[in-house]
Amino acid sequence: MTDADTDRLARVALTWVAEPGNRVVWELVRDVGAEATLTGVLAGDIASPAVRKRARARRRENDPWTFAELAVRRGKTFGARVVVPSDPEWPHGVDALADLELDTTGGPNENVRPPLCLWVRGSPPLNEAFERSVAIVGSRSSTNYGEHVTAELAYGVAEHGWTVVSGGAFGIDAQAHRATLAAGGCTVAVLACGVERPYPLGNGALFEQVCASGLLMSEWPIGAEPQRHRFLIRNRVIAAATSGTVVVEAAARSGALQTMGRVIALGRRAMVVPGPVTSAMSVGCHELLRRHPEARLVTTAAHVLDEVGSIGEYLAEPARPAQHARDDLDEESALVLEAFPRRGIAEPDQLAARAGLGLRTVLRRLTLLEMLGLVERRDVGIVLTEEARAAPQRRSMPPQLPPPSDP
Amino acid sequence: MTDADTDRLARVALTWVAEPGNRVVWELVRDVGAEATLTGVLAGDIASPAVRKRARARRRENDPWTFAELAVRRGKTFGARVVVPSDPEWPHGVDALADLELDTTGGPNENVRPPLCLWVRGSPPLNEAFERSVAIVGSRSSTNYGEHVTAELAYGVAEHGWTVVSGGAFGIDAQAHRATLAAGGCTVAVLACGVERPYPLGNGALFEQVCASGLLMSEWPIGAEPQRHRFLIRNRVIAAATSGTVVVEAAARSGALQTMGRVIALGRRAMVVPGPVTSAMSVGCHELLRRHPEARLVTTAAHVLDEVGSIGEYLAEPARPAQHARDDLDEESALVLEAFPRRGIAEPDQLAARAGLGLRTVLRRLTLLEMLGLVERRDVGIVLTEEARAAPQRRSMPPQLPPPSDP
Repeated sequence: MTDADTDRLARVALTWVAEPGNRVVWELVRDVGAEATLTGVLAGDIASPAVRKRARARRRENDPWTFAELAVRRGKTFGARVVVPSDPEWPHGVDALADLELDTTGGPNENVRPPLCLWVRGSPPLNEAFERSVAIVGSRSSTNYGEHVTAELAYGVAEHGWTVVSGGAFGIDAQAHRATLAAGGCTVAVLACGVERPYPLGNGALFEQVCASGLLMSEWPIGAEPQRHRFLIRNRVIAAATSGTVVVEAAARSGALQTMGRVIALGRRAMVVPGPVTSAMSVGCHELLRRHPEARLVTTAAHVLDEVGSIGEYLAEPARPAQHARDDLDEESALVLEAFPRRGIAEPDQLAARAGLGLRTVLRRLTLLEMLGLVERRDVGIVLTEEARAAPQRRSMPPQLPPPSDP
Repeated sequence: MTDADTDRLARVALTWVAEPGNRVVWELVRDVGAEATLTGVLAGDIASPAVRKRARARRRENDPWTFAELAVRRGKTFGARVVVPSDPEWPHGVDALADLELDTTGGPNENVRPPLCLWVRGSPPLNEAFERSVAIVGSRSSTNYGEHVTAELAYGVAEHGWTVVSGGAFGIDAQAHRATLAAGGCTVAVLACGVERPYPLGNGALFEQVCASGLLMSEWPIGAEPQRHRFLIRNRVIAAATSGTVVVEAAARSGALQTMGRVIALGRRAMVVPGPVTSAMSVGCHELLRRHPEARLVTTAAHVLDEVGSIGEYLAEPARPAQHARDDLDEESALVLEAFPRRGIAEPDQLAARAGLGLRTVLRRLTLLEMLGLVERRDVGIVLTEEARAAPQRRSMPPQLPPPSDP
């Protein structure tokens, strides 16, 4: 076994005997290396009584080195690899957690340091996936409004070559992943459990799709349970690995407040979508905007790109009123929508012919239109929804986002 | 005629020969007094060619001194008085316009100086009405959402003894006046035309009510038409005379952007209510929040009071989700609502008996409940609306605003 392999296994073992991000463990690894740290921890030679206690309990279960070897071998059967800081694909954004001021985060401070290793399923190299990435996160109990806005934002930034990162949860997270896939973009689900059984199970089909073109990623080894406290630990990685985080919907006193505090402390862009003040699911968003002057209110993908892009890379159009969902559509989606008969059922190939677009393009745009609530799949074909029929036909194309600079 | 009377008439005449707020005219009045300024202007001795030209045209219509005397006499038949800076009731907030930086306002700069005089109908002294005052303004084409939020905010601040100032327009302005009246509070409509025929005519009944307990106010003399450019000139008085301005709904590129720039330049509190990003009537509000870091997002009356009140005078409750309009009701309104039969019709005296409240209180609360869309007046009595029936009965009272400190 090479030194690199030993380092990798020691890091895996350490995330089994202590929670990822543990400050004392991470400092030891930084100072003496992973192997010596593991040896020390197993000998009870560590300044944290909690870690000492847990290490003792783990050793009674299995030898940590053996556990790590088994986990890596089992991971391979799921196509999972373990990435460590010395690997070329390590996403160096997370290193910023080394300097996160502990007292500015407003939450428990024990597990805020960088990951020791990252489990990954999916082909894109981590560093490339995160190079131009933005997180879109929010409530599990999202509203139609929140899901609609999430689809617009995720689709829009994905179309411009940006990776959309989220947490794989129900609601806003799932919608962000879905819209990115619909745009043919890259999406990363950052999990709080082993990558072999992404949580929640109800999003299983979605996780398969994410994995096929994007990435599933976790700090926890194969077999780890999605325990409650792990979601908070996981959140710091989403904040640090991306250029900015957008919160779409959040209830009062939601975890989003802590996440945004960290996003700002890390020098990343904090973005918040407002909503009706009468909606419980926007109360947390408004709290964020009131509490953090650094947080920017965003309403369109152009606003998001404006925040995270290089200066002048995206020139956001001045905000335009969007009375109907169809007013905001990109050119191709609008063509597909206009190809529909006003009543009755259409087939994708008919739409492709009438819109003058390829069938694959039409299928992709239909997925977006479905998420926006403008079309509905029936057994026999696809129809316009009430909402799409109610909206006036567009007479002229509204100003569009500039063409993707990284197509 | 006393010197004071002469000064008053000269000021009235000057707002007839030049638009209120005119910079050159105001500076002359400051330096040599109103009478000498009028004499100079009529002799063509003024540095503004536009004012010279208009003064010549006016003189062909009537002698300005005679015009002023007639206007004051006619005003008296409408119960209107003319207030000038030397009067004890002059609202000194408007004097801040003397120092408004011209280049920071972002709009036409010719008419930003303080008013020369104010025409007033209604009994409260101007200075007392404006001492604790907040402006609530917004779009004429408001949505149900905007009107709902306006009613909540205006009612809430009025209940705490704050005057609600607005522009008397359809939509948000009218709703702000109405809700203040429903709360038994003081409201001021600042007009851009003569106070004898407040514009728009469709708000005639509302203006009568405003006048009965609050104030109609204008810089323009009796007979002045509500010309388009006058609304922008008028807006600076609303901004300067109040402690802060809340914009509830505004379309893209609305006049609210200029108004808020001035509110901030004047050192007043700029407050904005967010809304759905899919609503054209909230686009301007989101623009404001994005463009002006000084503008504060507000969602409740407590937030507004927190901005304009003395430090610690109002301790805003942390935001609570309001799933249903009824969750946000004050104690008395909730009692009235709960006194309703779930189906069928109620009479105010029955409600008063069941709720254990006085009939006048019940009538006032019914007006608020009607504005919130929770009850509906029928010919035969009052019924709960669908919305009120759909909302769950409140099990416990939510935290309330602190009791009014100025009851």
